[in-house]
Amino acid sequence: MRSEVLELTTGTAPAVLDLTAECRRFASTEADGLLSVFVPHATAGVAILETGAGSDDDLLMMLEHWLPREMRWAHRHGSAGHGRDHVLPALIPPSITVPVLGGSLMLGTWQSICLVDTNVDNPRRQVRLSFLPG
Amino acid sequence: MRSEVLELTTGTAPAVLDLTAECRRFASTEADGLLSVFVPHATAGVAILETGAGSDDDLLMMLEHWLPREMRWAHRHGSAGHGRDHVLPALIPPSITVPVLGGSLMLGTWQSICLVDTNVDNPRRQVRLSFLPG
Amino acid sequence: MRSEVLELTTGTAPAVLDLTAECRRFASTEADGLLSVFVPHATAGVAILETGAGSDDDLLMMLEHWLPREMRWAHRHGSAGHGRDHVLPALIPPSITVPVLGGSLMLGTWQSICLVDTNVDNPRRQVRLSFLPG
Repeated sequence: MRSEVLELTTGTAPAVLDLTAECRRFASTEADGLLSVFVPHATAGVAILETGAGSDDDLLMMLEHWLPREMRWAHRHGSAGHGRDHVLPALIPPSITVPVLGGSLMLGTWQSICLVDTNVDNPRRQVRLSFLPG
Repeated sequence: MRSEVLELTTGTAPAVLDLTAECRRFASTEADGLLSVFVPHATAGVAILETGAGSDDDLLMMLEHWLPREMRWAHRHGSAGHGRDHVLPALIPPSITVPVLGGSLMLGTWQSICLVDTNVDNPRRQVRLSFLPG
Repeated sequence: MRSEVLELTTGTAPAVLDLTAECRRFASTEADGLLSVFVPHATAGVAILETGAGSDDDLLMMLEHWLPREMRWAHRHGSAGHGRDHVLPALIPPSITVPVLGGSLMLGTWQSICLVDTNVDNPRRQVRLSFLPG
């Protein structure tokens, strides 16, 4: 299994970061198998969605509704409302797999692989890409 | 890795479509490994739930609450409220894996593998099944 | 593919049960590959989150909001509000994969693999661990 870690900057605002180009590059030297995209953080997730047409902003908007900052979070560390970021990975898991054929991701035309990170306290992030030959 | 694409008709209303029989057939000629179910669309997901006892309708009801059509979606293409369909894959991812032993899916008694598709503008759908031998 | 089933007691209240130690033990005799954690139940899911600092309780609190007991659930079996438990796996899927290198789970410092079970009618649960060598 080949495995590598991407070092990313997500900044200090909630972000949806498109990783598709990095994933394509990583898989391009492989044949058939499964790409695993895994985020080793407790306050971020991976989603596959269309980017560049507003849906990344729509997702961040909905996350404000699904995980309101002003809830009385039991988790009290970090900036105000940071407890929500720790529930995010239950909704948007930190792990997804994508089938690969002949070194190409079998994504649909409008699908992008995205890091979803609402944590404003941690601007640096890692994402692990692994390829399981089939 | 064996891989094949199912061609499905989901119609013009939100739908939960049970794919378990197709998945069982696909895995039945294999030994041990992992089944990957992947939807190459930006407005659909895969869920594992009980079907035939109301929970598929309950899920569609909850999706109306979680992703209200009347929100001001940044994504503006398609019919009214279509922006919600583009956020669906963040909640219900388009990718899931199921362990297979001796050609049998290791599903529980009440589990079915389902395509979840709220997009009313696209009645034809594909689902890719892949088998990674273990 | 090595595969084994954990027998767990989740009790009669909604629970987030940390499975990380069992997963670590299971993977420790392996080299590189993918760990599959799969729950063969229609009313439970698997999430990766921080435990021990309140976020497990925060998740159970949010599940009360996302899946209110008092909804008119089409699914009518079991105790009052049990229909919600059958929608849970659409939000928190029963399947997740974690990359393994040299027998170690590639989890981040604050990540734990958890069974999420809101079903109060079924205190005994199974979780299947499988290892796909890479």
